[in-house]
Amino acid sequence: MARIVQKFGGTSVADLAQIRNAAERVKSSVNSGHEVAVVVSAMAGTTNQLANWTREISAIHDAREYDVVLSAGEQITVGLMAVALQNIGVDARSWLGWQIPLFTDDVHGRARITEVQTEEIVRRFKLGQVPVVAGFQGVGTDNRITTLGRGGSDTSAVALAAALHADRCDIFTDVEGIFTSDPRIVNRARKLDKVTYEEMLEMASLGAKVLQTRCVELAMNHQVRLQVVSSFTDTPGTLVVDEEDIVEKEIVSGITYSRNEAKITLVRVPDNPGIAAAIFGPLAESSINVDMIVQNVSEDGRATDLTFTVPTDDFQRALGVLEDVKQKLCFERVIGDQEVAKISVVGVGMRSHAGVAMRMFQALADKGINIQVISTSEIKISVLVAETYTELALRSLHTAYGLDAA
Amino acid sequence: MARIVQKFGGTSVADLAQIRNAAERVKSSVNSGHEVAVVVSAMAGTTNQLANWTREISAIHDAREYDVVLSAGEQITVGLMAVALQNIGVDARSWLGWQIPLFTDDVHGRARITEVQTEEIVRRFKLGQVPVVAGFQGVGTDNRITTLGRGGSDTSAVALAAALHADRCDIFTDVEGIFTSDPRIVNRARKLDKVTYEEMLEMASLGAKVLQTRCVELAMNHQVRLQVVSSFTDTPGTLVVDEEDIVEKEIVSGITYSRNEAKITLVRVPDNPGIAAAIFGPLAESSINVDMIVQNVSEDGRATDLTFTVPTDDFQRALGVLEDVKQKLCFERVIGDQEVAKISVVGVGMRSHAGVAMRMFQALADKGINIQVISTSEIKISVLVAETYTELALRSLHTAYGLDAA
Repeated sequence: MARIVQKFGGTSVADLAQIRNAAERVKSSVNSGHEVAVVVSAMAGTTNQLANWTREISAIHDAREYDVVLSAGEQITVGLMAVALQNIGVDARSWLGWQIPLFTDDVHGRARITEVQTEEIVRRFKLGQVPVVAGFQGVGTDNRITTLGRGGSDTSAVALAAALHADRCDIFTDVEGIFTSDPRIVNRARKLDKVTYEEMLEMASLGAKVLQTRCVELAMNHQVRLQVVSSFTDTPGTLVVDEEDIVEKEIVSGITYSRNEAKITLVRVPDNPGIAAAIFGPLAESSINVDMIVQNVSEDGRATDLTFTVPTDDFQRALGVLEDVKQKLCFERVIGDQEVAKISVVGVGMRSHAGVAMRMFQALADKGINIQVISTSEIKISVLVAETYTELALRSLHTAYGLDAA
Repeated sequence: MARIVQKFGGTSVADLAQIRNAAERVKSSVNSGHEVAVVVSAMAGTTNQLANWTREISAIHDAREYDVVLSAGEQITVGLMAVALQNIGVDARSWLGWQIPLFTDDVHGRARITEVQTEEIVRRFKLGQVPVVAGFQGVGTDNRITTLGRGGSDTSAVALAAALHADRCDIFTDVEGIFTSDPRIVNRARKLDKVTYEEMLEMASLGAKVLQTRCVELAMNHQVRLQVVSSFTDTPGTLVVDEEDIVEKEIVSGITYSRNEAKITLVRVPDNPGIAAAIFGPLAESSINVDMIVQNVSEDGRATDLTFTVPTDDFQRALGVLEDVKQKLCFERVIGDQEVAKISVVGVGMRSHAGVAMRMFQALADKGINIQVISTSEIKISVLVAETYTELALRSLHTAYGLDAA
């Protein structure tokens, strides 16, 4: 007997048929003797509809009221799911954030969970009852409803799993698991049986959209075993676990990409100490996240070219900020380029294996793909290339690292 | 300065444009120096949609979960309304049933309000804030969401007005007020400026659908001045008040009708003591509400005909119950008739005026309309007629009592 949290995303509860299907999955786990807690998102499309209404009523809306409106989506699903479970003979009841309570701070719209009280839920586990918990929502210190922001329901599930000391947290979604690369681009991408938290974190932050960084971080910090699994098939999913739980580590687990990058080059920046801070300070103050940075060595020792990337969404704003400080910083001009993509190779194995980066550079060079910027961490290497090469780069690297399915 | 509760029904908050329109009405009252509390229903259609989903998932659904799902409708509207008010410069915040709290008993789906705590709302009134309260919902003793059943939002508004000792409770709806008769049938029906609680109660229970009996009862018991008013026009509505507040009482205030009546006649019932109880007992046990009853004097002193009405929805069930007891009660046979309508004349003035009933019987006789059953109370006279005469009866009586608009 295990204790399992099962989370169903928006596409897995998109309509009544899907809700019934999800209920059957829960029942099957209950029948296997497990204690199961269910976490649900809003029905696909509902959250967007509610968010649009709120924005339409007023562009500058009160985040506290936005949370009241949005959290209604999950409220609908918990009720329907509890009824669907009861209908097939599973004792179930719904729990809203304020009923658990799942406490958060008061940062409405992107609140952080501070405490999940589970005494009552555990008591009801013992009576054979399945709690159906509303994802994405909590209650702030002011007794008002809060929402957790993007990927909030996954975060709810992991936080609940941590508080319940659950053996596993299943994230049911519309993909079969975590793949070595995007299967829509790389035909021969394989589903991974296991992946480490660290790798998953890099993949999430590098553009693989299955899990949000925040949920993986929480799982890692609390050692919650995550499983990403499809609610539409019966195949096993991907386990996200600790490095020790993986016997045979692959050197490289995945090749990811992100098109949400824009490159900015400042031409002939005076090569003085403190100049980087003077440039990136104003960007940070404007909440613009700078990712890859490369500074060319100046030839004459007096001026240098500085290149960095920002999210595409912030590109225009970043150019505005730089225009404002241009006088003061005395660089010559700004060159922007949105036609770029970041390609990354991720794997905990590269810690202990030399030559991983070299293989990447060689594979790209073989295809005539120019590398514009490089950045590395302990377990990933990212390069910026012209966007048009995205698919070619992904497939070439997938083959080069021996990841292709047989 | 007055303290006013303003309640907007589903058609008055049907879309974002209507919500904005309602917000403007609130703002106008606030600008006049009033303390205003707002109560809102779910957007028109939402409650039905949510109820249908719940029923589709399971015919025998848990009423507690039904309440969780349904109450999401009002949750969406309070948030949107609060934002709409803020957007036009009115300080506002939403309040859900559990946040107020508005306590109810635990009869989910049709809970009764037990207490409305208003300290915090009153404190915020003093700071100039408009509370936007979710109608139709409360919280039970088990800390779960309850809903109040049909007409629940009106009941919420009146209960809040009572707890706040409000000077008035405005019910904004899609009609201009209470009319002397149904304007769709009686062209010359007039809007009443004032009507007494007692009259409104009779009209509500007799088929005028603007206000639910329950909400009028609550208003009467707590002496809450109600105003029924259109959210689509700027004309004054109808005040529902105490009899003393009406200087010039009309003898008759309204002519109402109900097609939701079915007539049942038991032929040749033995004329023994206790026979009525033996018939109406089983019907009551089956929760079938018997309305008008008439018993003909038996010619031979041994058997009589007994006629009564039940709601159309319960007609088949009533016939079934009677079939079951037929043997025991020894009546000859049952005659059912669903093609009937109840026409009623209502007015507190008839307490002190003789001849009101006579005028009704004469007016109907003049048109050749046969009266099948008669029942009276202190302030109303109802007759059962063949359904086909409904319109003719209404118009004739409207004229006979001098109610026609000039």
